[in-house]
This record gives sequence, C-alpha cells and structure tokens, in this order.
Amino acid sequence: MDLTLIPDGGLAWLDASGPLAHVVLSSRIRLARNLEGIRFAVRARDADRRRVLDLVDAAWQRSAAARGGARFLLDDLGPDDRQLLHERHLVSKELAAAGGERGGSSGAAVYLAGSLGLMVNEEDHLRLQTLHSGFGLTQAYGALERLDSELGVALPVAFHPEFGYLTACPTNAGTGLRASVLIHLPGLVLTKEISKVLQGLSQVGLTFRGLYGEGSEVVGNFFQLSNQTTLGKSEEELLDHLGKIVRQVVAYEEQARQVLLRDAPTIIEDKVWRAYGLLRHARSLSFDEAMNLLSGVRLGVGLKLIAGLSVYTLNKLLIFTQPAHLAALEVRSANDPELRATRAAYVRRLLDAEAAPPA
Amino acid sequence: MDLTLIPDGGLAWLDASGPLAHVVLSSRIRLARNLEGIRFAVRARDADRRRVLDLVDAAWQRSAAARGGARFLLDDLGPDDRQLLHERHLVSKELAAAGGERGGSSGAAVYLAGSLGLMVNEEDHLRLQTLHSGFGLTQAYGALERLDSELGVALPVAFHPEFGYLTACPTNAGTGLRASVLIHLPGLVLTKEISKVLQGLSQVGLTFRGLYGEGSEVVGNFFQLSNQTTLGKSEEELLDHLGKIVRQVVAYEEQARQVLLRDAPTIIEDKVWRAYGLLRHARSLSFDEAMNLLSGVRLGVGLKLIAGLSVYTLNKLLIFTQPAHLAALEVRSANDPELRATRAAYVRRLLDAEAAPPA
Repeated sequence: MDLTLIPDGGLAWLDASGPLAHVVLSSRIRLARNLEGIRFAVRARDADRRRVLDLVDAAWQRSAAARGGARFLLDDLGPDDRQLLHERHLVSKELAAAGGERGGSSGAAVYLAGSLGLMVNEEDHLRLQTLHSGFGLTQAYGALERLDSELGVALPVAFHPEFGYLTACPTNAGTGLRASVLIHLPGLVLTKEISKVLQGLSQVGLTFRGLYGEGSEVVGNFFQLSNQTTLGKSEEELLDHLGKIVRQVVAYEEQARQVLLRDAPTIIEDKVWRAYGLLRHARSLSFDEAMNLLSGVRLGVGLKLIAGLSVYTLNKLLIFTQPAHLAALEVRSANDPELRATRAAYVRRLLDAEAAPPA
Repeated sequence: MDLTLIPDGGLAWLDASGPLAHVVLSSRIRLARNLEGIRFAVRARDADRRRVLDLVDAAWQRSAAARGGARFLLDDLGPDDRQLLHERHLVSKELAAAGGERGGSSGAAVYLAGSLGLMVNEEDHLRLQTLHSGFGLTQAYGALERLDSELGVALPVAFHPEFGYLTACPTNAGTGLRASVLIHLPGLVLTKEISKVLQGLSQVGLTFRGLYGEGSEVVGNFFQLSNQTTLGKSEEELLDHLGKIVRQVVAYEEQARQVLLRDAPTIIEDKVWRAYGLLRHARSLSFDEAMNLLSGVRLGVGLKLIAGLSVYTLNKLLIFTQPAHLAALEVRSANDPELRATRAAYVRRLLDAEAAPPA
C-alpha cells in the first residue's frame, strides 16, 4: 500500500504534542451508528452492505469535516495492506480480517480524513473514530462530533428515544461511544501496584485492554483504558469520568516513578539504559521484545535519564516496528521470518539518527 | 597500592601484540624451585622463610635479568592490594591470602621486573613466572630461563639427579614447569563441541582451568590450558607438546566460528551486538556478566563483525573490571556493593573512547 495515499498517514497523533504525552500516547473516540431499515451487520446480506456503502459514500462526499479525505475498500487490499491499516489503528481487527473474504462483496470500507476515520460495514454499519496525540478527549470529541452531526443529517441513523443509538451489540447502545486512552504505565508495573489500579478501574465502570484493543495482550506496559458503559449517561459525562480517572492513574504512575528513582535509582537507570543498548545494537528483534525495550527507553526519557531522544521517535518506533509496517517499508511479506532483522535495522536507523549522547 | 610502582604494571601482555592474539590472550610459564637445607613451605618456620627471603633477595639483586625490578612484601600490603596483585596474575591466590596473616612474618614476597615475576615463600620457596602476549611459549620460556639460570648460580637449588627439581608437591617435581595458555573459545562453546575438546586434552596429558587457575570456574569462555605432567620430559618437549595442542585447539575454534557465521549469521551478529550494546550502556555489571559480555564482543571483533574496537581494549577491560582493580581506580573497597556501578561506568568510558561505529 502506498502510505502516502492516506491523508497524513493517520499518524498525526504520533507527534507527541498533546498534553501528558510522556505518559499518555493517544486519546481515541469512536461512535457506533447504524442505519434504519437496513439489516444490521450479523444478518446483513451483500445487498444490505452495498446499500450502506452507497449511502455512506454520498454522505461522506457532502461532509465538510471529511473534506480532502480518501476511501479504501477492504476488498481491494491484500492481507498485508489490511493488517497495515489495523496496525495504524485505522481499522479494527475484524474489519482487517473481513475484507476480500466473501469474494469481493464484504462492502467493508474505511474513510480517512486527517485525524478522522470512518469504518463501514464493520460490526456496526458505521463506526466513526478519531485519534489524537496525548491526553485530549475533549478536543478529540469536538472533531468527531462535527462529522457525526453532518453524517446524521444525511443518513437515516437508527435512534431510539429511550435507548439512544441502536447498535449491533447491546453493550454499545445509548451513546454508541467508546473513548479510550493509550497509556504507558511502567512505574506501576515495576512497583507491582498495577493490579490494584486495574482492579480499581472496573469498580468505576472502566476497563483496560492491550495495545490492539479487545482481546489483545498487554505488551510493553502499554494499556488502553476505556469506558465500559455507553448507556444512561451523556457523552460529556462519559468523557469527563474517563478523563478524571485517567488523570488519577497518571498521578499514580508519576508517584510510582518517583518512588523507583528514590529507592532504586541504579536499578532503574541500569534497566532503561540496557533497553536502550539492546535497541541500539541488536540485530534481531521480535515485536514483543521491541515493545518491552521501547517501554524501558520511554521510561528513561520520561525520567530524564536518557536525553536527546524525542517521544515522537518513540511513538514512531511503536507503529513502524509492527509487521505490516516493516513489510511495507521493505517490500516484504508481513510473515517473512527476516522481519526480525528488518525490525532491528529500522530501530537502529532511527536511534542512530537521534544518537542520544551516552551520558 | 600505587600501580605505577609495579614495573610496566605487569601488564605488558595486554597489548595483544603476540601471535594469534584474537584467540590466545596470553602465554604463561612458571618454574617451581626450592632451596636445599631449608624446610619446604608446609613445614617451614618463620626463621626458614626469613632465610629464604634473604637468600633470594641477594640473588635477585645480582641478577641481570631482574634489573630495574621491584619487591613487594605481602605482609606490607592490605587485602585489596594483595587481591589486586592476584587479579593481575602476579601472585597466586594462596600467596595473596597468606600475606599479613602470621603477624608480619609470612616472609611472602613478590619480585617483579618487566614480564618476569618471582613469588617467594609460596607453596615452593621460589616460583619464577612470566606472562607474554598472545601465543608465545618459546619466547616466554627464553626470558624466564635466563632469570632461572642466574638465580640457580647464586642459590643452592634443590635438584635430584634422577627426579630433577624437587618441589613441595610431587606433581610439580622434575622440570618444575607449568606452562599455560589463556585461550578464548566461544565458538566451541556455542557449537557445543567444547566438552569433546576438553575431554581430548586429558588424553594428551593436558588440563584446563578457568581464568584464575586451579579451582577457578570458567567464565566468559576463557580457558587456561596447561601441561598436567612435569616429570620425565624436558622443558622443550613439554612446551612443544602444549604448543602443538594449542594450535590444534585454535584451529578447531576457528572452524567453529566459520560454521557459526555460515549457519547462523544473524544469530551470531545479534549475539555479539547485544553484548556490545549492554556493555556500552548498562549502569550496573557484575564481574561474571561483564566477562560473558566481553566474550561476546571479543567474538564479534574476531569475526570482524565489530570494527574499530581493539583487542588491547578488550584485554584491558578483562583486567581492570576485576574488583580490586576497580577499587584501586576509584579508591573504594573491593567489597563495596557500588562496585557494579563503578564497573559499568569504567566499561562505558573505555568503549565510548573507542566508539565503535554502530555499523
């Protein structure tokens, strides 16, 4: 896939310009919407999906928020390209897997415009989403709301006066909103306070996942915190609540880091510099190891133990060391066993370019 | 201890100028000698040791080979200084431990002149030794023989027409010669052929030890190969035999390295560069870990995978990362728990100075 075709590559959030960017990588919001009078995804037939796509297409064309955007039909893309969109958090795992599987009639598509994205014929007819740098839920919602209302004017969105937006899965009904924050918590993991914190989340209606959303494992101490409930509260209330808790978790994380620095400075310094040394020099890296080492280096940058290395570069490494991204960079298959060597070479190239002084 | 007092620091062998220096670090020969009419060490009283010391002192003064040398009485040295001499392979573990233990009357001393050394009142009255860079047994023996014959003229050396030189332990009788070669065999260890090779040694009258001689463990794939028997053969025959076998072991090692490069190039490259990365950036290193990582880097330099790093620096790291050396460099105790941080800092300083291009 020619990545340059994707408006801003869907990677604006990498720039680490947002608030608390040393701990919070990104804020993401998605809204689930469905169209009245068309069978929902599980029961939809080819003609239904086709109709959804046609309607959405027309609405997207008319949307001011979506100006300058692009559309990709999943059926037109090979498996590596679909995985690439998934790694970029632009399409869900399900949508990436669905494309091309029904003989070119899945109707699955993704629309992209700046930080805005729209998945079509995924679990819901429409899933609008946006991804922002750092901790910026309100800002993210503002951008998404504009697209939502423009599409809502043009489309017969299924809305029930009592239940709110209707969705394929009842857990999404109501606001249809899922907000999540990708957060890096090495301090809480190292001080072993993380399980306490994660348990606390479920008591306040939040949940956590790994780097790739539902069902994905936590690697590199990267967690996605998100709202569990979508019903019975307004969008603003949901975002406000998540925001408060995230701020608290960030405070816990910062405390944990200070405790580590105070009680075990050599161990922490050693840990972060070993991670740096391995990333800078290894000739073969699995994705999981790379994530774990990046976690160590990120902690070191956050604690100002490692200087001259930008959070932007670390964010970039997080995305571009994924299999499909490496494969695209090097014109290989994402299953190529040589990818570990390619990954190590890519990491070295970026780190050498910044060449953190070895302090 | 002021290291500058030791003639050339006893470290001429570090320069890596000798033959096969990429695999053979050093060649070492020692000769055990005792004096007629004086009780041997195990039964010796203070007066005996005193007499040995006086006689040796006079003979050393007259020796041309020993010109410009220096004497250290072990009783005058603190435990750190004695350990330092031991780490420098200038005194045995026993002599390092013995000094100062009998209220200043151990009579234990070490004489040093260039690459020549002489321990007095160790297990034998005299132990002459020399250490040369790389694979140079003949050259080493030449230098030592001169000192031996000069001391032999001045001292009543215990010699039996049938048994040769008499020694405290019968396993040293005859020539009194123990020649050993410090050799780095990571290739044979990685290809798991090492045990076969080591078993073969005992069948040809040789034995192996770790970095610090008898009873010491093998760390960092550094082995000392030496002759087992000292009796029934001439010095030249013993050296010739050891030399032949060492050359064979070096050939096996080089084969093993080529096999690794051919069959697992990425694994080997990754291994040596990870070792480099950790040494270059770690903030805390145990001695054993440092040895193992230095072994990896040394293999990388030998295979020309790592450029711009001299074998001299690697040899220096091998010596100066030992506890007493670090302690002396930093005016600390060799038991200081902070030594791991000091070791890591020392390693970084030396590697940064050479700053191997990260290829």
